[in-house]
Amino acid sequence: MNPADREQAVTDEVVASFAGTTDTRLREVMQSLVRHLHAFARDVRLSEQEWEAAIGFLTRAGHITDERRQEFILLSDVLGLSMLTVAINEPKVDGATEATVFGPFFVDDSPEIPLGGDIARGAAGTPCFVSGQVRGTDGTAIPGARVDVWEADEDGFYDVQYTDDRSAGRGWLRTGEEGEYRFWSVLPAPYPIPHDGPVGDLLTAAGRGPMRPAHLHFKVTAAGYRTLITHIFLAGDPYLESDAVFGVKEGLVVESGKHHGGTAPDGSRPEGEWASLTFDLVLVTEPA
Amino acid sequence: MNPADREQAVTDEVVASFAGTTDTRLREVMQSLVRHLHAFARDVRLSEQEWEAAIGFLTRAGHITDERRQEFILLSDVLGLSMLTVAINEPKVDGATEATVFGPFFVDDSPEIPLGGDIARGAAGTPCFVSGQVRGTDGTAIPGARVDVWEADEDGFYDVQYTDDRSAGRGWLRTGEEGEYRFWSVLPAPYPIPHDGPVGDLLTAAGRGPMRPAHLHFKVTAAGYRTLITHIFLAGDPYLESDAVFGVKEGLVVESGKHHGGTAPDGSRPEGEWASLTFDLVLVTEPA
Ligand SMILES: [Fe+2]
Ligand SMILES: [Fe+2]
Repeated sequence: MNPADREQAVTDEVVASFAGTTDTRLREVMQSLVRHLHAFARDVRLSEQEWEAAIGFLTRAGHITDERRQEFILLSDVLGLSMLTVAINEPKVDGATEATVFGPFFVDDSPEIPLGGDIARGAAGTPCFVSGQVRGTDGTAIPGARVDVWEADEDGFYDVQYTDDRSAGRGWLRTGEEGEYRFWSVLPAPYPIPHDGPVGDLLTAAGRGPMRPAHLHFKVTAAGYRTLITHIFLAGDPYLESDAVFGVKEGLVVESGKHHGGTAPDGSRPEGEWASLTFDLVLVTEPA
Repeated sequence: MNPADREQAVTDEVVASFAGTTDTRLREVMQSLVRHLHAFARDVRLSEQEWEAAIGFLTRAGHITDERRQEFILLSDVLGLSMLTVAINEPKVDGATEATVFGPFFVDDSPEIPLGGDIARGAAGTPCFVSGQVRGTDGTAIPGARVDVWEADEDGFYDVQYTDDRSAGRGWLRTGEEGEYRFWSVLPAPYPIPHDGPVGDLLTAAGRGPMRPAHLHFKVTAAGYRTLITHIFLAGDPYLESDAVFGVKEGLVVESGKHHGGTAPDGSRPEGEWASLTFDLVLVTEPA
């Protein structure tokens, strides 16, 4: 047997070992995984030292992962697997807002705030008034939609990255009668993904940066519509072209208004600098 | 952009992110990994739930891995990646003994035993006299070669799997003037790879068994020759066709002699049942 046939024989034997898997989806996924994983090892002529390095990498990733840190999601993110999974499962629909990565910083029990309330709740940064409409692709306003928002503060940290158990820079509200939403927040800042672990080491070795452009996360849920998980990015951010996790879509980038004093859209009269963002969230009808 | 192009654009963007990687080997490996990983996700139309299951699987594998347990090596083993890496790096040479998987149970500081000594050192099982010659493919005997041996006991456990810090069923010796080696040991038993973790759950879900056919591990080192890492398997073992880690090669399977009393090849007179195995270890010359 020549070397290529000998290698193919290993792959064939492993694929065959799943022939008796009665869960047909598991069989399909595992056989495809084996074929692609083996094709990778053969294409690059993976050395035994590289195999050992991969085992060591995964081991370190496992050991740094805990309740506050998820290195395997970071790995999936920086390899673009997270964004690809979004692309596969959330195909673009004309006129609808595009989805992007969920990220590791969502929290299930964030506080409800009233329409027009403040989600910053102590997060540091320039006050920012965010507003828009939640509607369907046919233009129908969606009242009572749940809008979850979360964001980093001006130092680039989410509340859960601090060790003092604070809750800030996150909350949820329901849209009004015309599908409108509005809240006060702070302007988010670009931030590095956690990079003091093996994923950070990989980025450094690869000459890639850990930064994400500034963004606000949204999750929008409404009966009869597909749940939308997305971001708004800020136009002019220096990292829009080099997001470490490949989450930027052109249609998600918005210009922020810059203001000083005066009257805000909600009639309040902020002192000093403040900003405004307007972004409509357009949902896709869920097939009944 | 149609959905396929949109997915391809994600892959292209991630591949391009490694364009500036100055370590050309790292660049090649990472770009190939991204292409194959993405091709897998696209081929199976990976769902978001499956992506989450994969993250959870790797997280559990990381948390069960410690000094005594290496779940990522087990994963590589049951996916055949370990055996494929052997096939890629240890191509078969005519007349030479074939390599197989190293496995997770080698220990660096095993005891030296004299030629003809006992490596069982208390391991339970039927006494077994193992002998053969270490030589090159041209027939040249290799005196002074280092032969490391390790094996499970008759209950299917390696010493390091017991919690009492025992050292048994392992040792190393040097070949004699004619390249000969011989030692007493015990007949090894088939054993399951550790299967109380996520890899075991995967095997169960896939309808695959965790068993390995009985074997002795060998590592043979000699100046001027390529290090050989292999097993001897026992003919007639019920798991030869279904090794959980795909390590069996026809040329590594040997018939054991069964004896009762009488005189052993070393002139000793064992009482009761004993066995014998003869296997020559043929090394490949290392290019100078
Ligand atoms: Fe974020
Ligand atoms: Fe073994």
